[in-house]
Amino acid sequence: MKLVVAIIKPFKLDEVRQALTAIGVHGMTVTEVKGYGRQKGHTEIYRGAEYVVNFLPKLRIEIAVASDVADKAVAVITATARTGQIGDGKIFVTPIDHALRIRTGETDSDAL
Amino acid sequence: MKLVVAIIKPFKLDEVRQALTAIGVHGMTVTEVKGYGRQKGHTEIYRGAEYVVNFLPKLRIEIAVASDVADKAVAVITATARTGQIGDGKIFVTPIDHALRIRTGETDSDAL
Amino acid sequence: MKLVVAIIKPFKLDEVRQALTAIGVHGMTVTEVKGYGRQKGHTEIYRGAEYVVNFLPKLRIEIAVASDVADKAVAVITATARTGQIGDGKIFVTPIDHALRIRTGETDSDAL
Ligand SMILES: Nc1ncnc2c1ncn2[C@@H]1O[C@H](COP(=O)(O)OP(=O)(O)OP(=O)(O)O)[C@@H](O)[C@H]1O
Ligand SMILES: Nc1ncnc2c1ncn2[C@@H]1O[C@H](COP(=O)(O)OP(=O)(O)OP(=O)(O)O)[C@@H](O)[C@H]1O
Ligand SMILES: Nc1ncnc2c1ncn2[C@@H]1O[C@H](COP(=O)(O)OP(=O)(O)OP(=O)(O)O)[C@@H](O)[C@H]1O
Ligand SMILES: [Mg+2]
Ligand SMILES: [Mg+2]
Ligand SMILES: [Mg+2]
Repeated sequence: MKLVVAIIKPFKLDEVRQALTAIGVHGMTVTEVKGYGRQKGHTEIYRGAEYVVNFLPKLRIEIAVASDVADKAVAVITATARTGQIGDGKIFVTPIDHALRIRTGETDSDAL
Repeated sequence: MKLVVAIIKPFKLDEVRQALTAIGVHGMTVTEVKGYGRQKGHTEIYRGAEYVVNFLPKLRIEIAVASDVADKAVAVITATARTGQIGDGKIFVTPIDHALRIRTGETDSDAL
Repeated sequence: MKLVVAIIKPFKLDEVRQALTAIGVHGMTVTEVKGYGRQKGHTEIYRGAEYVVNFLPKLRIEIAVASDVADKAVAVITATARTGQIGDGKIFVTPIDHALRIRTGETDSDAL
C-alpha cells in the first residue's frame, strides 16, 4: 500500500476529488497547510530580498491506496490539479506497512 | 521505528490518548483535518448524486513509536476509537528511518 | 528521497526556514498542530493527576529532499529549532518512493 500525499491549490480540491472517485479511490484526508516552493511564495525575485518568503495557503491531501493504484492516482491528481501556473504543487508517494479500518477491524488492502 | 497515523472521530481523542499513555506511548501530534471514506461523508447514497461529498471533521493523530510497540498501539487505538458506527476511521503504519529529539540530540529509539 | 517531518516551536519557523534556504532546500509545507511529549504538556507532574494533559501548539514542517541532503537538513533544523528548554520538538525522517512536480511533470529528484 502507498500513501499518496499531494499539496495542491485549494480551489482544485473538488476537481481532484471527483477524478479520484472516478478511478475508485474511496477515501481522502485533507489538511489546510501553508507552504512555498522554488519561488518562495513570490512570483518575482525582489532585489536582494531573498529572505522574504510568503507562505501561501495550500491543501494537503492524503490518500491511502493499494500499491497498484498509486501510479494511476498520481496521474489523475497531476492531470486535474495542474493549471500550468507556478504553485501547482507536488506529489509524494510514501510506503504504508499496515492499514486498518477501525469499525470493522479489516486490515491492509481490505481496509482501504 | 514506525509512525502510526490514525484518523479518528474528534470526541475520541481523550480516550485514545489515555489508552496510549497507559501502554507507555509518550508523545502525540494532532492535526484537525476533514475527510471522507466509503460513504463519501453521507450515511445514505443520494439517487444519482454520487458527486455530492461531505467532508467531515476528523482528527489525524500521529505517534512515533519503536517498531515493537506499533502493533500494540494500533490495537489500543482500534479498541478505544471504535464506536461501531460508520466513520470510525483508519490507521496507517508507515516506516521511520531516523528520529531525533531536538533538545537533547538523542536519536532513534532514544529520541521517542 | 526523504520526507523530513519536524515538530517545532511556532516562533522558530522563520529561523528554521532561513537556515534550510541557506543549504539549498527549496520548499516546505507547514501545518498548525498541537501535541505533547514526555512532560505531557506540563512542566511539572501533578500529584496523581497523570490524566491531565495539555496539548500545546506546535508547527509541523514537512520538507521533501534528496536522500543525501536529509542528514544536513536534520542537523540544520536541530541547530536552529533548539532553545534548550523542554518542548523543542522532534524530527522524523521517512522514505519517499516517488515525487512529482505538478506543473512540469518532473519526477523524483528533479521534482524537489
Ligand atoms: N520540497 C518540498 N517539500 C515539502 N513541500 C513542498 C516542497 N516543495 C513544494 N512544497 C509544497 O508544495 C506547494 C507548492 O509548491 P510549488 O508548486 O510552488 O513547487 P515548485 O517547485 O515551486 O513548482 P512551480 O515552479 O511549478 O511553482 C508549496 O507551497 C509547499 O506547500
Ligand atoms: N483511503 C483513505 N485514504 C486517506 N484517508 C482516508 C481513507 N479512507 C478514510 N480516510 C480518512 O478516515 C476518515 C474516516 O473514514 P471512515 O471510517 O469513514 O472509512 P470507511 O472505509 O468509510 O469506514 P466505515 O465504513 O466504517 O465508515 C475519513 O473521513 C478520512 O479522513
Ligand atoms: N512520540 C511522538 N510521536 C509524535 N509526535 C511527538 C512525539 N513526541 C513528541 N511529539 C511532538 O513533538 C512535540 C514536542 O515534543 P517534545 O519536544 O516536548 O518531546 P519530549 O520528548 O518531551 O522532549 P523534551 O524533554 O525536550 O520536551 C509534541 O508537542 C508533539 O507534537
Ligand atoms: Mg512554486
Ligand atoms: Mg465511512
Ligand atoms: Mg517535552
